[in-house]
Amino acid sequence: MLNAVGFAARHARIACAPEQAGAPSYPPSASIKLADLNYMQGFPPAADKQITRADYLIDYPKLRWAFQHMRELIPSRQISRGPQAASLLPEGENREAQINALQINLQEGESISFSEFLERSYADALLIIDQGQVIYQAYPNMADELSPHMLWSVTKSFTGLIARMLMHEGLLDGQSQVVAHIPELADSGWAGASVQQVLDMTADVKYSEVYADGTSDVIHYGLSAGITQSSEWQGPTNLYEYLPSIGADRAHGEHFAYRTVHSEVLGWIIRRVSGKDLAQQVTERIWSKLGAEQDAYILLDGKGTEWAGAGLNATLRDLGRFAEMLRQGGRYNGQQIVPQEIIAEIQRGGDRAAFARFGRQGMEGYSYHDQWWVSHNSDGVFEAMGVHGQLIHVNPGAQLSVVRLGSHPVASNDFTYAMTRRVLEALANLLRN
Amino acid sequence: MLNAVGFAARHARIACAPEQAGAPSYPPSASIKLADLNYMQGFPPAADKQITRADYLIDYPKLRWAFQHMRELIPSRQISRGPQAASLLPEGENREAQINALQINLQEGESISFSEFLERSYADALLIIDQGQVIYQAYPNMADELSPHMLWSVTKSFTGLIARMLMHEGLLDGQSQVVAHIPELADSGWAGASVQQVLDMTADVKYSEVYADGTSDVIHYGLSAGITQSSEWQGPTNLYEYLPSIGADRAHGEHFAYRTVHSEVLGWIIRRVSGKDLAQQVTERIWSKLGAEQDAYILLDGKGTEWAGAGLNATLRDLGRFAEMLRQGGRYNGQQIVPQEIIAEIQRGGDRAAFARFGRQGMEGYSYHDQWWVSHNSDGVFEAMGVHGQLIHVNPGAQLSVVRLGSHPVASNDFTYAMTRRVLEALANLLRN
Repeated sequence: MLNAVGFAARHARIACAPEQAGAPSYPPSASIKLADLNYMQGFPPAADKQITRADYLIDYPKLRWAFQHMRELIPSRQISRGPQAASLLPEGENREAQINALQINLQEGESISFSEFLERSYADALLIIDQGQVIYQAYPNMADELSPHMLWSVTKSFTGLIARMLMHEGLLDGQSQVVAHIPELADSGWAGASVQQVLDMTADVKYSEVYADGTSDVIHYGLSAGITQSSEWQGPTNLYEYLPSIGADRAHGEHFAYRTVHSEVLGWIIRRVSGKDLAQQVTERIWSKLGAEQDAYILLDGKGTEWAGAGLNATLRDLGRFAEMLRQGGRYNGQQIVPQEIIAEIQRGGDRAAFARFGRQGMEGYSYHDQWWVSHNSDGVFEAMGVHGQLIHVNPGAQLSVVRLGSHPVASNDFTYAMTRRVLEALANLLRN
Repeated sequence: MLNAVGFAARHARIACAPEQAGAPSYPPSASIKLADLNYMQGFPPAADKQITRADYLIDYPKLRWAFQHMRELIPSRQISRGPQAASLLPEGENREAQINALQINLQEGESISFSEFLERSYADALLIIDQGQVIYQAYPNMADELSPHMLWSVTKSFTGLIARMLMHEGLLDGQSQVVAHIPELADSGWAGASVQQVLDMTADVKYSEVYADGTSDVIHYGLSAGITQSSEWQGPTNLYEYLPSIGADRAHGEHFAYRTVHSEVLGWIIRRVSGKDLAQQVTERIWSKLGAEQDAYILLDGKGTEWAGAGLNATLRDLGRFAEMLRQGGRYNGQQIVPQEIIAEIQRGGDRAAFARFGRQGMEGYSYHDQWWVSHNSDGVFEAMGVHGQLIHVNPGAQLSVVRLGSHPVASNDFTYAMTRRVLEALANLLRN
């Protein structure tokens, strides 16, 4: 199906794991400031400043520019904010200096400041909303504060939220079979799996998601969806053709394993059940109600299918509005946008034992439920996360929302998650006092 | 440069001229209502309902759907309306019934009603603003009133307006040489041409723009820009590579000939002179000031270059706001957006004798100036036009603005322009009384 050798060899460059022996040789974030990289500057840009769909993920740090310009590389569908003005996102006392100076002890006994944390996590932008007021916003690597930024797997949490809303309305049953909605998957690995197992990624299919491995199935997914492009790819150029080709693995319901293709199946189910695509669902149910200050958008494969597991793009502050809506039990901008019961259901979490067996670094004690990462801590923290450093952190206990957009060099959040968790705990403690 | 045979054969299908002997066999507009075509409906759509970048222009009437979903097929760049609410577009007395019943004598002595005109011109949407008030809006073939619609060569008039604003500010000299700004064109057909000759399309280059001819240069332009796609195309996939390949023809300044590549050169000049791309120029100078109700966008080639002659997409009502701004001497939404002198300069028009020699059907007496079609009639009408029926009609004398979005089967406005002109004259007379 794939002439993968050359492609894998090229992709392997982006994805060596940071825990490998020997010091990783990534350029420090401060040495690759977006403003200094001059990507796509000039008419035309110089050859080494040119970025295309074929190379943005391969030649680091091109993704630093690309993540703010995805619609310029790949077809996209609008998620509309509606005709009204943006809602007020209240500004509180600016605490940037205090927060930047905050010292955090890392697991190894090493201590870093918050501003060093921004550097080490290759942040493009970071927003802190404390008790409903913006107290910190930084854009160390954004060409424009109003640029939608690529969210990768944060998309999954939107998809999960829409699915849960349909379930809440009785339009979708979590215990129903995937193949009851998508007969095309009858001979695939999803045969026998329930919708809830897909939501919690405890359905099991023969599909590896290891970005470090150029022959991993996730590379086939990326080529099928058009996330990456290669003239060598002979497989599908459409998700509806690709998904049925994925076979069975272990029994469903016993193991958590993080697989983007589950989210794509979930998106397919949402469309079939509701008759609307994901962009329309997110527009109607969320984006037009938040008072967003920019349209969001979702990227599409070669036949117009949304990347339900990876394709969302939105601005930092609009994601802040979204996080605040969730933190406040679904209420924002003068209306109940998501039923409070749904937020409670997400926080209830999934199968912690199954999650523990998966062994996600730095996320001990977590579970995954309805496409959200659930901390089970005393603050009721839950999170949406996307590769290369995208994070929506909702902390109801501390009345805190944090959004980080990033472009770190490793295609895994293992790269920074343990550090990020420590930092956000320290931040919550600071603000609580 | 092009293995054009197969491609030309397929493209010839979309473009037979309507004046040819024998009755043209286009399906009537009413028989291909967008709502009944079911394009891209279903998840996935049935094979015959699928539309891709490779076929939307070839298999009529796929373009009827595609013109409302271009960003879903092709990469695009945002033109932002800004964070504020949309400006009020006042609604006047609804005169739709009266206007639909209006009978218009066509040149041949044949009489049609206004509603028949909508059908015959394959209108997707039509807006009439009389003395600042919306008195008619119809969406016979729009999935959503808020969908940006493909504008094709209407784009040129925006590009021309930006160029004229730069000239007004002393940043660009119309008498300067094209190659002074774009040395890459020194060996091309633009050597010796002035910026104003490009603006007025009296520069002359060896390039034919005949959509009916599958071997016409305009097909090469389309393939280079990525407007169409073909696996057979071996030429450039970027406008900056394509434009320098166009050679010289007759002497500059003597003939008007409508060529999209002039507008692409103009876009290049604007970027070089201002250091900003066209999307940024239109955002800052026009779109964010109009109080638009949707972002607009412009389509891009494979290396991120805007189609300065063809790629703009915007909604009907936002184009109404734009037309009203021009009708009112550049003032709209409480501010002077375009200097009044620039509107007067456009209305002054270009070389009418050169235009007459070009022989544009139905446009007798017109000229082309600053990328606008100028009527030289007593009302001071000037227009922006795009292929397949796109039209912005500004009539200061009658205090009338009309916007039509269309998807007619012929890739030439000769198909409907003579009729359209008669109808709009009759409309102005009706509203004047």
